[in-house]
Amino acid sequence: MRIDNRENDQIRNMKITNNYLMSAEGSVLIEMGNTKVICTASVEDSTAKHLKGTGQGWITAEYGMLPRSTATRKIRDSSRGKIDGRSMEIQRLIGRSLRSVVDMGKLGERTIWIDCDVIQADGGTRTASITGAFVAMVEAMKWMQQKQMIKELPVKGFVSAISVGVVGGERMLDLCYYEDSRAQVDMNVVMTDKGEYIEVQGTGEESPFTANDLTALLALAAEGCTQLNKVQREITGDFK
Amino acid sequence: MRIDNRENDQIRNMKITNNYLMSAEGSVLIEMGNTKVICTASVEDSTAKHLKGTGQGWITAEYGMLPRSTATRKIRDSSRGKIDGRSMEIQRLIGRSLRSVVDMGKLGERTIWIDCDVIQADGGTRTASITGAFVAMVEAMKWMQQKQMIKELPVKGFVSAISVGVVGGERMLDLCYYEDSRAQVDMNVVMTDKGEYIEVQGTGEESPFTANDLTALLALAAEGCTQLNKVQREITGDFK
Amino acid sequence: MRIDNRENDQIRNMKITNNYLMSAEGSVLIEMGNTKVICTASVEDSTAKHLKGTGQGWITAEYGMLPRSTATRKIRDSSRGKIDGRSMEIQRLIGRSLRSVVDMGKLGERTIWIDCDVIQADGGTRTASITGAFVAMVEAMKWMQQKQMIKELPVKGFVSAISVGVVGGERMLDLCYYEDSRAQVDMNVVMTDKGEYIEVQGTGEESPFTANDLTALLALAAEGCTQLNKVQREITGDFK
Amino acid sequence: MRIDNRENDQIRNMKITNNYLMSAEGSVLIEMGNTKVICTASVEDSTAKHLKGTGQGWITAEYGMLPRSTATRKIRDSSRGKIDGRSMEIQRLIGRSLRSVVDMGKLGERTIWIDCDVIQADGGTRTASITGAFVAMVEAMKWMQQKQMIKELPVKGFVSAISVGVVGGERMLDLCYYEDSRAQVDMNVVMTDKGEYIEVQGTGEESPFTANDLTALLALAAEGCTQLNKVQREITGDFK
Amino acid sequence: MRIDNRENDQIRNMKITNNYLMSAEGSVLIEMGNTKVICTASVEDSTAKHLKGTGQGWITAEYGMLPRSTATRKIRDSSRGKIDGRSMEIQRLIGRSLRSVVDMGKLGERTIWIDCDVIQADGGTRTASITGAFVAMVEAMKWMQQKQMIKELPVKGFVSAISVGVVGGERMLDLCYYEDSRAQVDMNVVMTDKGEYIEVQGTGEESPFTANDLTALLALAAEGCTQLNKVQREITGDFK
Amino acid sequence: MRIDNRENDQIRNMKITNNYLMSAEGSVLIEMGNTKVICTASVEDSTAKHLKGTGQGWITAEYGMLPRSTATRKIRDSSRGKIDGRSMEIQRLIGRSLRSVVDMGKLGERTIWIDCDVIQADGGTRTASITGAFVAMVEAMKWMQQKQMIKELPVKGFVSAISVGVVGGERMLDLCYYEDSRAQVDMNVVMTDKGEYIEVQGTGEESPFTANDLTALLALAAEGCTQLNKVQREITGDFK
Repeated sequence: MRIDNRENDQIRNMKITNNYLMSAEGSVLIEMGNTKVICTASVEDSTAKHLKGTGQGWITAEYGMLPRSTATRKIRDSSRGKIDGRSMEIQRLIGRSLRSVVDMGKLGERTIWIDCDVIQADGGTRTASITGAFVAMVEAMKWMQQKQMIKELPVKGFVSAISVGVVGGERMLDLCYYEDSRAQVDMNVVMTDKGEYIEVQGTGEESPFTANDLTALLALAAEGCTQLNKVQREITGDFK
Repeated sequence: MRIDNRENDQIRNMKITNNYLMSAEGSVLIEMGNTKVICTASVEDSTAKHLKGTGQGWITAEYGMLPRSTATRKIRDSSRGKIDGRSMEIQRLIGRSLRSVVDMGKLGERTIWIDCDVIQADGGTRTASITGAFVAMVEAMKWMQQKQMIKELPVKGFVSAISVGVVGGERMLDLCYYEDSRAQVDMNVVMTDKGEYIEVQGTGEESPFTANDLTALLALAAEGCTQLNKVQREITGDFK
Repeated sequence: MRIDNRENDQIRNMKITNNYLMSAEGSVLIEMGNTKVICTASVEDSTAKHLKGTGQGWITAEYGMLPRSTATRKIRDSSRGKIDGRSMEIQRLIGRSLRSVVDMGKLGERTIWIDCDVIQADGGTRTASITGAFVAMVEAMKWMQQKQMIKELPVKGFVSAISVGVVGGERMLDLCYYEDSRAQVDMNVVMTDKGEYIEVQGTGEESPFTANDLTALLALAAEGCTQLNKVQREITGDFK
Repeated sequence: MRIDNRENDQIRNMKITNNYLMSAEGSVLIEMGNTKVICTASVEDSTAKHLKGTGQGWITAEYGMLPRSTATRKIRDSSRGKIDGRSMEIQRLIGRSLRSVVDMGKLGERTIWIDCDVIQADGGTRTASITGAFVAMVEAMKWMQQKQMIKELPVKGFVSAISVGVVGGERMLDLCYYEDSRAQVDMNVVMTDKGEYIEVQGTGEESPFTANDLTALLALAAEGCTQLNKVQREITGDFK
Repeated sequence: MRIDNRENDQIRNMKITNNYLMSAEGSVLIEMGNTKVICTASVEDSTAKHLKGTGQGWITAEYGMLPRSTATRKIRDSSRGKIDGRSMEIQRLIGRSLRSVVDMGKLGERTIWIDCDVIQADGGTRTASITGAFVAMVEAMKWMQQKQMIKELPVKGFVSAISVGVVGGERMLDLCYYEDSRAQVDMNVVMTDKGEYIEVQGTGEESPFTANDLTALLALAAEGCTQLNKVQREITGDFK
Repeated sequence: MRIDNRENDQIRNMKITNNYLMSAEGSVLIEMGNTKVICTASVEDSTAKHLKGTGQGWITAEYGMLPRSTATRKIRDSSRGKIDGRSMEIQRLIGRSLRSVVDMGKLGERTIWIDCDVIQADGGTRTASITGAFVAMVEAMKWMQQKQMIKELPVKGFVSAISVGVVGGERMLDLCYYEDSRAQVDMNVVMTDKGEYIEVQGTGEESPFTANDLTALLALAAEGCTQLNKVQREITGDFK
């Protein structure tokens, strides 16, 4: 049994609270066990610089952690004067994942800014951010539809993400921090609701991993994403 | 009547949720109407550089706003590469206010880091931060007491803070953002539970104000702080 | 008696040298005892970004200290890569104070840049900066009038500022550094020539202060500002 | 046929020049077609801060591109004042990959700094950097062995890396820039000489990809890494 | 005899490889003994900000060193967040030297960016950069001529540069690092092919130097520049 | 005749006010015509990092301009977040010049910080800074002698500096800004009181210059430095 009494193929309790903040066009609080992330989507009426005049929109993401979301206080990026490497890596991943299912021509020359701010961190903050941000983005698009900025939601599919890994020789789904910090292999998987991959990032920092590990972990991840997608759909509805 | 149907001398609904985060030695969510701030207190086992070897402790504060706490998205400090002037002013005020009631010798050579992060902003975020941070700080000191790091809580009194101002010619208590942005005079008052002043900051950017205004606004602030102090005491207990 | 043999309600010797620098549209050297600040006002032919197209002008201030204006050498802001918190607080205060008496519509879409550079610091640099900067600003406006950029000076009143405080139990006017660093209560007051308040900032870092303290200190400050205003008027003339 | 007349499963001409620079403990120029990267390994006689006193060493990497390594001039990181997100991601990947095969206890409290500087970029710079950096690292370790700093090379296996992707519907090995910029799926794979995975990073920014794609691309990558490993071994020898 | 067996008035082996990189409009590798610098010239179709609308072009330079071009690893400018003082000084010198022989009106409203990146440093990197950058610039101008952007090469003369100095009491030409670090007097001289001076920078950090030293060193430098100019001309041809 | 009615070989009115600031160990105001620079020397009781344990001291300089020292307002370095290239070049020159005449072993493991702050700029600020800073440095050394930190002044000679140039075909001494901005050749010369050179920096940005120009300009500079040295000696006395 795992530290929190879950089965190896069991995700943590998951909850998405919609309309979490009063001002954002889309905003959710996503909870995966003790991991809590506020995800917002803000609509800006101009596209990215390199897309001006192309009719294409853009989606970009920023990720941050509150200083005391972690077990020991984490120094603020604004005090350090720059975003740390890990945060930058994560926000690039969030943006890329969401862009992969959006039709930028139908979005029009607008930018959707995604902000993922970790209130409490217990492993899996980047995957929770993606899963939550997808819902916030869809809600912001519904707002755009109501304002008649767009005719239909320019989204080709659902996006959710989960971590898997090998811990103490066992393959596990949805690692909490305790497990993540002891993992031999750590993998983050971003998937569509059709079971396709958007991003696969597997790392064997302590030791390399085999093709068998890879196959088994991907199967675990697929199970997890199916469950996450169900919760997302309860909120967004079957918009397509 | 005010925009949210309050009387001029009435504060907004106020709520402090204790133990809001699992890791911090002290953490609260403070809500003043729609304004919501997470305040944490983190204990570090060394004092500020300039106090090394003196036996004195230190209390310092940082303040930030989530990008979408405001009506339009605010660019992250970490993207700008530095803290903006207003945030810096506020975090200096928070630190100064708390230090004024703490016996630094009894704290010993330790630092308490205060983090105030605004989740949702509707006016009065700096005063809510002070009121909430005081509670988080006391809770962190109780944790220190349990760990036998200190014998008694090194706190000489309660600290709470509230805004007052002149809006449309009326003197008002606890301005929401709508009022704050229309105020002729804007004042932030930090007080002890004995009705003494820790900090008085009054600004008449649009037009100067008279001694009569000042006196009347200070009286309003005192009423407000008394109420805030009552809520604080319900959580911290009568520790002295 | 005070360290420099003044009475408690006596300001230091004060002197304003007009046209201190050859290039600036307005420039003064203000001396309050040993505190010496160069204040310049520079006219730029465009307004702040957020005011473009509104017909409104803007006034903004920057404040700095020469590295050896202080008793021990102060590291340059440019070496640290950013302005320190105290300087930022001060320059925001200077800008706010001057803007409160200027009719921005009559100024037109122009910016007046105020620069206050402390040559020698002996307490009260922020209040000396405000008092001096007001004169530099009016002189720059006279230059604008001569160039027929404006018809009349868009100034509604005089602005001067002084510090007051409680030191060793005594209430004192115009603290020098020796007094300031020992003060129980420290207050900076910005006033108009009509005796109204533009800004009141009172801090009791060591210990809180009472309403009686506040009242008495404000009375002292009013006396001080009246004297400062007289010196300002000798230079600017009775322009209204 | 591909733009440079290769078969889909064919890597570009590859060449590693050893001892490329006169000062570094290890240094190579690696060429993969037109992509050219200088990789150096520098030995520092202290370990990373978080490892002081543990007896463990550390390996860290930095990555940069010369401004005119690319088709249009790229602004220098030092002019921008910070490393861009992509470079940070890459240098973290290089460090992680090399660390995964090194026994940090046997390295002792030392740091090996890896620098990968792209002289000419034509796709696959991050994977070429890893392949080249591995050789530079081993050469630096041989230098340490000669200096009797270590008894044996603390390396558990070879590391090489290659890109694969889907371009115009075809699965291809070792993408050049022309192909990379048109890829539907882009994957970077880091492997040991035993055919195990150290890192798998697959991205479907334009469109998601299937499990079949993943399997086929991983097989292509394995072929590529086997060839790269052969060239590495010619230089380093069979050191284990 | 000198450390590398040269005569005091002898330059090191010098070689310029033209078309060193595939993308830049002009690019060379210049080698002066062990010193190796990649110099590129990039054509941008707009002039410097302060020249917009004047019909004048601009030439600007940037200079950097690979971290392991030096005997001990040099921290990257991008990690330090800013260019170091020495590099800034050098890049200003390179730009100034090249601009002095270019007719900016004939260049038209374009910028030529010069990048000098030191691959291996053994003294004289700034002078090698100038000598190499001149060739890269001319090659870029030939490219412009072919593209019919300009009718003739807007260059008034050749520019080359060399170091001279007093080492161990001896006056020497083209100092290597070993000599440079022991020099009593160090001078960098930039000259035209007509024997005129563009820049003379002589420094006696250890001890002042006499007019006789100055005269003799300038004569040595003239000899060196004549030889450098011959090699430049072999590549660029006699374009005037 | 020149714009300010001087002869070509005539320096501007020059004045050095000693003990200009109350706190610095050495401080002067130097005026060369309208150019005014405050130079201070601050004694710090530790040497530079790279000299710890060697018994050697260090002298380092910083240079800045007040925003309105120039005809149009210059943006503050602290707002730009870094020192501009020209200032960095100048402060390196000041430090190097002073170090060349100081016996660092006799100074002991201490640092003298030189700060040169330009109050008003009318050409020749870097050379005025050197001339003034030398006096401030000597005064600080006298202070050290009084405190018995050193036995004798560790200075081997006087240092002064002046600009020369070719303007409108005429060779001129001590250029004011009007001349400097029109100069074909611009040269800064730093000399000892024995007529030796410490630094010669000649630039022909508009056009190259001949050996004859160089010789004649150096002779002019020598005349100027002799006069400057006389004024310096009146203040410092003949300390050797």
